[in-house]
Amino acid sequence: MSKASPLVIGVDLGGTNVAAAAVREGRVLAFAKTKTHASAGVGAVLERIEEVVREAVEQTTGDLAEFDALCIGAPGAIDPEAGVVRDAPNLGWTDIPLGDELRSRLGLPVLVDNDVTIAVLGEHAHGAGQGARHLIGVWVGTGIGGGMILDGKTHRGWRGAAGEIGHIVMDPEGRRCGCGRRGCIEAYASKTGIEEMLREMREEGRESVALALMEERESDRLTSGVIAAALEQGDGPMKEVIDTAQFYLGLLTADLVNTLDPEVIVFGGGLVERLGAWFVDPIARTARTHVLLQRHADRIRIVPSALGDDAGPVGAAVMARRRHAEATA
Amino acid sequence: MSKASPLVIGVDLGGTNVAAAAVREGRVLAFAKTKTHASAGVGAVLERIEEVVREAVEQTTGDLAEFDALCIGAPGAIDPEAGVVRDAPNLGWTDIPLGDELRSRLGLPVLVDNDVTIAVLGEHAHGAGQGARHLIGVWVGTGIGGGMILDGKTHRGWRGAAGEIGHIVMDPEGRRCGCGRRGCIEAYASKTGIEEMLREMREEGRESVALALMEERESDRLTSGVIAAALEQGDGPMKEVIDTAQFYLGLLTADLVNTLDPEVIVFGGGLVERLGAWFVDPIARTARTHVLLQRHADRIRIVPSALGDDAGPVGAAVMARRRHAEATA
Repeated sequence: MSKASPLVIGVDLGGTNVAAAAVREGRVLAFAKTKTHASAGVGAVLERIEEVVREAVEQTTGDLAEFDALCIGAPGAIDPEAGVVRDAPNLGWTDIPLGDELRSRLGLPVLVDNDVTIAVLGEHAHGAGQGARHLIGVWVGTGIGGGMILDGKTHRGWRGAAGEIGHIVMDPEGRRCGCGRRGCIEAYASKTGIEEMLREMREEGRESVALALMEERESDRLTSGVIAAALEQGDGPMKEVIDTAQFYLGLLTADLVNTLDPEVIVFGGGLVERLGAWFVDPIARTARTHVLLQRHADRIRIVPSALGDDAGPVGAAVMARRRHAEATA
Repeated sequence: MSKASPLVIGVDLGGTNVAAAAVREGRVLAFAKTKTHASAGVGAVLERIEEVVREAVEQTTGDLAEFDALCIGAPGAIDPEAGVVRDAPNLGWTDIPLGDELRSRLGLPVLVDNDVTIAVLGEHAHGAGQGARHLIGVWVGTGIGGGMILDGKTHRGWRGAAGEIGHIVMDPEGRRCGCGRRGCIEAYASKTGIEEMLREMREEGRESVALALMEERESDRLTSGVIAAALEQGDGPMKEVIDTAQFYLGLLTADLVNTLDPEVIVFGGGLVERLGAWFVDPIARTARTHVLLQRHADRIRIVPSALGDDAGPVGAAVMARRRHAEATA
């Protein structure tokens, strides 16, 4: 990495989609996206990552050798030093040396980090969290992940496992979560939880438009697009389930504010990208009524991501630049 | 403050008790304690602080002028720069210039900070958290307070309100809390919550030994001593209520680990001081089963305070030394 503004590939590996972008100076030059299909195994996912990376490169210089680095965000506990995905439940991955694998496939330096950590870095540098000393990101997708900048720096924790806010318990006798425990916020407010609540309502004779739309589109998972379409059609069951999700996300936000007292809480991920302020504003209202210290509580910014789908790739470029600066310091 | 090892008065102002100690190099030389009686008003509390300070001084040099500073911890949101207690619900205080008041009464430099923040600093420097990069303290008393050292530094948050973990919602349809909301951990696991649960059991015809003991001792609040005595007598209602408190503190601990991934969680405050590992071990067991990332979860230290009643005064001395070092750097 010899140039002042490195040309970077940012990859966002999610439980549903994998996206790659070519980025320079916080600007996305090219973007490519496909389905992850994690159930097909690690090898198949690596293929798909390589595909989207080559597609993004094709749209720009056409030559991978002109890129300085690739930075990839994965959902779960990551060891950034080793470039290893330690534990990613939504991918079914344990101890996958993602850095080494991609380096040998693509022949350029690879950085691996947590997906939300990277997206939050993007929002901090170029999006909704600019200038904030303490920023927390809540990413709502297949699961719910968190990322934190505290005192101006990424907080990873002792085991690199900080930010697993999807498993904060909202009700110890509540809904069963994918992790085996009860009442985690993911069971109420992730796309997985939302779909399950809709399926339970169907069993009780209340059919959501969303399930019919999923079948029509031959989708095996509830997507943000289907959720938005159902809401636009005034679907009662969907409205009810989204209300529940917003309520619990409001309590979660208040818990995070009471614990860490950040200036900004930014919401991101596919669902937020699709629904925007309409989704986040009621969350902010619930949060503010549950914050203990009311002084300046109205000044805490509780907002949707400003970068949307670009938060991951832009954050990846910021991460690559920082680590490059550290390495050459 | 001219000497290498300053002689400091550390004061711990709680909702129930106020204690003062003379401290040098992490060692408590003298200790004095009395009831806070916050209901008597700010002036009366200031009198009592002055009383215990003078008593601790009397036990050592006898001369306040030989002390370099006083550092006081108060429960709630503090502005350490201004020396002002912004909001302390358990004292009923808003915007009290505690620093200025004590400075003019005692004639020495006064530092004000959050009580648990100070105690956690003590545990980090000389107690259960030595060597930890990320440490969270959970203090169980009249209320429940938190303190944090993240990446080696005290985390205060944007408004100085970080650590209000007593109002993390454990069950949104649960018990009414003193703050007016429902299901906060304080409603289940603080001494206030424990007493209320016992009173409700009495109304249902299940009388705890503890309530009789309180009346016998003419105590208007449930104390840690009475809780311990009731448990020693095999009191069924008390055992049941303590089980509940431990269960919710276990979930809270898991929430904090999932969010921040610290190496050490230290429990302190009067109740923990009295009940020790017997109280904390079941909390640790519940926490470990609720931590998402199980890798090395058994290595997270979930332990009682090593300094006990001394954590506040010792932490106050550490705080005074640090601020002195910063000021003269």
